[in-house]
Amino acid sequence: MKPLGPIPTGYESRDGELAIGGKTARELVAEAGGTPLFVYSKAHLDARMAELRAAMPERLAIHFAVKANPFRPVIEHMAGLVDGFDIASGGELAMVTDAGIDPALVSFAGPGKRDAELEAAIAAGVTLNCESENEARRALAIGSRLGAAPRIAIRVNPDFELRGSGMKMGGGAKPFGIDAERVPALAREVIAAGADWRGLHIFTGSQALDAEAIAETQGNVLDLADRLAREIGHGPLPKLNMGGGLGIPYFAGDAPVDLDYVGEELSRRFATLPETLETTQLCIELGRYLVGEAGVYLCEVVDRKVSHGETYLVTDGGLHHQLAASGNFGTVVRRNYPVAIATRFGVEADEEANVVGCLCTPLDRLADKAMLPRADVGDLVAVFCAGAYGASASPANFLGQGSAREMLV
Amino acid sequence: MKPLGPIPTGYESRDGELAIGGKTARELVAEAGGTPLFVYSKAHLDARMAELRAAMPERLAIHFAVKANPFRPVIEHMAGLVDGFDIASGGELAMVTDAGIDPALVSFAGPGKRDAELEAAIAAGVTLNCESENEARRALAIGSRLGAAPRIAIRVNPDFELRGSGMKMGGGAKPFGIDAERVPALAREVIAAGADWRGLHIFTGSQALDAEAIAETQGNVLDLADRLAREIGHGPLPKLNMGGGLGIPYFAGDAPVDLDYVGEELSRRFATLPETLETTQLCIELGRYLVGEAGVYLCEVVDRKVSHGETYLVTDGGLHHQLAASGNFGTVVRRNYPVAIATRFGVEADEEANVVGCLCTPLDRLADKAMLPRADVGDLVAVFCAGAYGASASPANFLGQGSAREMLV
Repeated sequence: MKPLGPIPTGYESRDGELAIGGKTARELVAEAGGTPLFVYSKAHLDARMAELRAAMPERLAIHFAVKANPFRPVIEHMAGLVDGFDIASGGELAMVTDAGIDPALVSFAGPGKRDAELEAAIAAGVTLNCESENEARRALAIGSRLGAAPRIAIRVNPDFELRGSGMKMGGGAKPFGIDAERVPALAREVIAAGADWRGLHIFTGSQALDAEAIAETQGNVLDLADRLAREIGHGPLPKLNMGGGLGIPYFAGDAPVDLDYVGEELSRRFATLPETLETTQLCIELGRYLVGEAGVYLCEVVDRKVSHGETYLVTDGGLHHQLAASGNFGTVVRRNYPVAIATRFGVEADEEANVVGCLCTPLDRLADKAMLPRADVGDLVAVFCAGAYGASASPANFLGQGSAREMLV
Repeated sequence: MKPLGPIPTGYESRDGELAIGGKTARELVAEAGGTPLFVYSKAHLDARMAELRAAMPERLAIHFAVKANPFRPVIEHMAGLVDGFDIASGGELAMVTDAGIDPALVSFAGPGKRDAELEAAIAAGVTLNCESENEARRALAIGSRLGAAPRIAIRVNPDFELRGSGMKMGGGAKPFGIDAERVPALAREVIAAGADWRGLHIFTGSQALDAEAIAETQGNVLDLADRLAREIGHGPLPKLNMGGGLGIPYFAGDAPVDLDYVGEELSRRFATLPETLETTQLCIELGRYLVGEAGVYLCEVVDRKVSHGETYLVTDGGLHHQLAASGNFGTVVRRNYPVAIATRFGVEADEEANVVGCLCTPLDRLADKAMLPRADVGDLVAVFCAGAYGASASPANFLGQGSAREMLV
């Protein structure tokens, strides 16, 4: 038997069935027209943002990293909740523009920005988090050609990492940002060239659950920003994107981030900011933390079979929508995400089963040796923590399957 | 320094540039309209099939597993080379039908076939490799309803695996096929119900390079098929799909399969087949082996940067088209695929560089600490072994990127 990850709070059972936004899983599937289906909960998004606002210093702006969930109704809903948007490509620029987001609230990071993407971003008035000297100079040249002063921030590759983060984006050699010691010279060059100077972007890692590590890193980010601002010598930084880092529990034994601790430490730091940061717009950018637990992936059991004494629930879903849950994206040891039988939600688990997808590959596993209520053909399986890096970060066309349905309720 | 995988044979340098089908990398990119670009080589596909035909017994039919590369021109080209097609979904059924493939040459395996997929396949006359009792009975019921005798083969979960295979599809509890001991009863049931009995499908694993292991497994497959045919008691098997298994070298130290050995052993076995297999249509189904080395992924260097003394070539490609090459699909330890600077092909390697994609994630790596000729912005990078499970098995929409271009030359 292998443990399942913890089901996020906020999901309830109605008549023995998982209910989201007041509707049962079967009602949601009927409304969407079938499975597989991603359901995103407005109530969950709202609650998460409310918790975050309550815990964080009022001064801290909160940005949504669109990459975590670019479903248009989600972007539109987030527009009413967050203070800004972070994008990672020209494709995401088009998505936020189409969703009616003010480009002045958008910043664009990513190590391989093509000239066409820079041009579109500059023309729209999006802030560029420049990842190299070369990129900054290309942006300046394009700005000159367009007759527009590009909004330029510099992404810093810090000399420290976020301890315990699932993905390290700083500390040592990295393709992201510019090594800290080279930042001041480039900042002065960019300012001298007439760019609209937007400050710094310091991203150290993501998917961390340890509040002390997060708080310590945020302190280091503020220190580094202060040091760099003094070296740049152009007065207070206009803006500082302090990165993200807050993770969500996926696996048995994971506990949620102690948000109050992070907020209190940040408030303490904000109370004694150095002159270089006194008037700075301070923000964090969160993707997974805002939307990950707000999403549930529903698929239907199409076969129930036994092989060598093990029970398999074969679903019409799979890794083509749930690459990370299958254990094939950035993980070394596969562990079970939170998974449940949505049509027997809250019912006592009474058998050990493997939940697999419909793909003809042994990689397509949704839950291994999990204790679940007995499920039959026609039952619905729910994979939780499906709101971030699910639909958009999975190979939807693998084996000719195609995309899942998505809905926001 | 980390080694690169071996570049497949058949790729030459013209004027210091990688040439495919007589055209240089830059010419191909210009023709396709830009990067990132998958180029598949007809000459390579033809040569691979010719080698295979020469080595294998004439009696052995060769099927193409569409999942490896469903690009329509590739399917159409393979139609002139192979004896049959294997599909894994209703989506792939539509692809082969659209490409003009005779459905009588097509068989459909996969553990999660929905009723709608079974119906489409039965109506078209495709052979179903049934994966469970439940599925076979659903197929019979749908056949009754349609007034058509479904073509049914049974997929067997064998009691043995293919030693050294990258993906094991047999041996122990599996979601694929029906445990061998339950196959005879189901076969008799299916035959008695009036299905068009098509025999057995025994798939043990894929991506094996050890010819002895492959030959031994093929021998075991023939033995198991004989035993099951005798237990079924319905005379010689009409057809036996012996599975695939032949792998291609991806990593330093990998050597190609000794095809002659496999062919000789198979010929030896074919010379003394038991009565149950004497008139049987015998086939193998290959995907990766047929098309993997025929494909090259081309992307352009958009930035060249140094961080803490390491050089990074940032390309406009990445894991959204090359998930497996990035080390994030079914592998535990990341190793370098064969990668080269296409615009400096055959030029002496003189620097160590990291080749990364344009995605804002540390997972997006195409080559780590590789010795390569010095490359600058505008150079093209080639990732080899990109013909199978590249374009269709990667999260193309991740970070708003979208699909790569594809061309067959």
